[in-house]
Amino acid sequence: MNNVQTLKGFRDFLPKEARKRQFVIKTLRSVFELYGFEPLETPTLEYEEILLGKYGDEGDKLMYRFEDNGGRRVAMRYDQTVPLARVVNQYRNELPLPFKRYQIQNVWRAENTQKGRFREFLQCDIDTVGTESKTADAEIVALVNTAFEKLGFKEFTIQINDRSIFGNLPTKAIIIIDKLEKVGKEQVEKELKENNFDPNLVDELQKKEIPDSLQEVFVMAKSLGVSEERLSFNPTLARGLDYYTGMIIEVVIKDYTVGSVGGGGRYDNLLGLFGGETLPAVGFAFGFDRVMEAMNEQGLFDDTESSASSVMVSIFSEDLADASRDVAKLLREKNIDTELWLDPKSKMEKQLKYADAKDKKYVVIIGPNEAKENKATLKNLKTRDQKTVDVADLPNEII
Amino acid sequence: MNNVQTLKGFRDFLPKEARKRQFVIKTLRSVFELYGFEPLETPTLEYEEILLGKYGDEGDKLMYRFEDNGGRRVAMRYDQTVPLARVVNQYRNELPLPFKRYQIQNVWRAENTQKGRFREFLQCDIDTVGTESKTADAEIVALVNTAFEKLGFKEFTIQINDRSIFGNLPTKAIIIIDKLEKVGKEQVEKELKENNFDPNLVDELQKKEIPDSLQEVFVMAKSLGVSEERLSFNPTLARGLDYYTGMIIEVVIKDYTVGSVGGGGRYDNLLGLFGGETLPAVGFAFGFDRVMEAMNEQGLFDDTESSASSVMVSIFSEDLADASRDVAKLLREKNIDTELWLDPKSKMEKQLKYADAKDKKYVVIIGPNEAKENKATLKNLKTRDQKTVDVADLPNEII
Repeated sequence: MNNVQTLKGFRDFLPKEARKRQFVIKTLRSVFELYGFEPLETPTLEYEEILLGKYGDEGDKLMYRFEDNGGRRVAMRYDQTVPLARVVNQYRNELPLPFKRYQIQNVWRAENTQKGRFREFLQCDIDTVGTESKTADAEIVALVNTAFEKLGFKEFTIQINDRSIFGNLPTKAIIIIDKLEKVGKEQVEKELKENNFDPNLVDELQKKEIPDSLQEVFVMAKSLGVSEERLSFNPTLARGLDYYTGMIIEVVIKDYTVGSVGGGGRYDNLLGLFGGETLPAVGFAFGFDRVMEAMNEQGLFDDTESSASSVMVSIFSEDLADASRDVAKLLREKNIDTELWLDPKSKMEKQLKYADAKDKKYVVIIGPNEAKENKATLKNLKTRDQKTVDVADLPNEII
Repeated sequence: MNNVQTLKGFRDFLPKEARKRQFVIKTLRSVFELYGFEPLETPTLEYEEILLGKYGDEGDKLMYRFEDNGGRRVAMRYDQTVPLARVVNQYRNELPLPFKRYQIQNVWRAENTQKGRFREFLQCDIDTVGTESKTADAEIVALVNTAFEKLGFKEFTIQINDRSIFGNLPTKAIIIIDKLEKVGKEQVEKELKENNFDPNLVDELQKKEIPDSLQEVFVMAKSLGVSEERLSFNPTLARGLDYYTGMIIEVVIKDYTVGSVGGGGRYDNLLGLFGGETLPAVGFAFGFDRVMEAMNEQGLFDDTESSASSVMVSIFSEDLADASRDVAKLLREKNIDTELWLDPKSKMEKQLKYADAKDKKYVVIIGPNEAKENKATLKNLKTRDQKTVDVADLPNEII
């Protein structure tokens, strides 16, 4: 077979990359749970009618859908909000409200890959369903702040706006104004004029003061630990606007110019999608691929567990393989991630080369002298330092 | 819309269940990394020709495959071994050998759901590619042992056989003998006779002694920490046999009667599937749904983080909401998962009922008396004990 390749827009993640992804997922998951959000999983395939028409014409076009072996029309998950609406409808009596769930699953969209978009990508969403409380909004802001801090970002701002700022402005005008950060003021004013809107709208919006409803969220977010300088009222922020009914937020990382790394807000009218009671909700979606890109650019993976995979125990010679197995066992008992070299006949040079290629931080060597005295040599592959210590002390030497 | 439901064979996992799944995944992942395995992710969709014909006629029939929007024939992941073979072929020059990878992703099969089978289910695989070393086999056995121990299982056996035990026996006979545990000796002997094989084959196999090649694996597995009574030589174990070339293993949990909870072995001829060099390999697949079922049956989730979701901080009254926010912030700074009640107007009774429904272990209450003295009342919802302590001591009281 010659055609051994992956589909356009679909990606393999080899260990180096997959380790980094796992680090980000693990960090986000722990922050979600820190704030009392709980996991939800929904199926990859849904009845087509559940998803169709929920994302506009563009969505229907980009959706992966087909007929399954049983003649059912099915579609692949396109986002995590419509499945959330289905779950909230379907299990209404089992789910205590507020329902605070996080969801970290792939979605599929047949996007134009030339724009640097992927057809399979991970979404990381949190949503609080069933309360209009502003405390819920503030908790989202605080969580987002904690998440980006724990990922290692130092300088970022959480831009916040409120739907009410736009009053009765037509959607068309809002969409033009929303592009301010991207295309600049001049261009926005030009487009407003071309569409017969007042080009002074931008100035007028920018003069607006933070509304009371947002002020309340700011105060609570600060008392939950968000520092003043992280919060920025941005009266031109709309995020496409479509379904937001209150707070709108977006996170921007300093020196990362591709765009925002996540956004969300309050949407009180969406979750009645499948009939039944409409439930108020507020949520946030982390832009996983952009977060990865920004972390790579800013070197944030460098000193994390994702950058090095702990220890390899080498095998000096066949007759000393036992000693190496004993050491591997000991380290694992101390919960130290340990790869044991597998071929007792390999030259040490080959083993060290492999450890380097695999980003190991340490290699342990037990030669005849070490074995005699129940010692081991610990080689730090990053600093190139090495020392010989008692085997029993080895776990403490590995940091 | 009336038809708000999931497809047959596809499952929603609501928080209670999703928490347990996450616990198992987290445990397996940590054990995989403890033994030096690294994560790999492959796409959900592959070119159909990559998967087609790799799983026999049955596989082609059960595979989800369709034409995408660009007219390409595509198929959904059916297992993780064929994608592994593709990856090993495609990135041959980037992957240092041995390649020790784990993979925890969903697969899709249009199975007959009446047999209690699912159409979307999680696979958890480890494989060591590129070495014939028996140490690799022993490491798999040791890892499997550690994994089931860390999941909380007390009594289980790792049954082991070697392909060589069957010598030149025809596949048909081996498949009959393989059913011994399931259908009993009498039935197997009957089927052997019906198919013109010697019914004494079972007795003959059972009299066989452990071959040297396996003996070596046993010795190493023991030196890596597997206790003698866990290891059981089973000369009739074949696991369908198809592609195993050496060691064959299977894990059986005492009192769990549905079947084995995982299996694997050495397969030295499979990974040349896509041309290029054939690489020797040994691996193991955890039966995720069965592991979940066995853990539920044996109550192994009861005292884990998956059974209770730590703390809820209630709000006594609107004017005391500040104090509750301060406590939530403090607990989170100490890395304690904390849900803050969101509606400052709710009655305490409603809040406690919610906390119970959400399996919270603790509720924190800060009433006017507590607030005055900078104290908080900690209520254990499992034991129904409660005590009032200084807010600063709260993190230490929460275990």
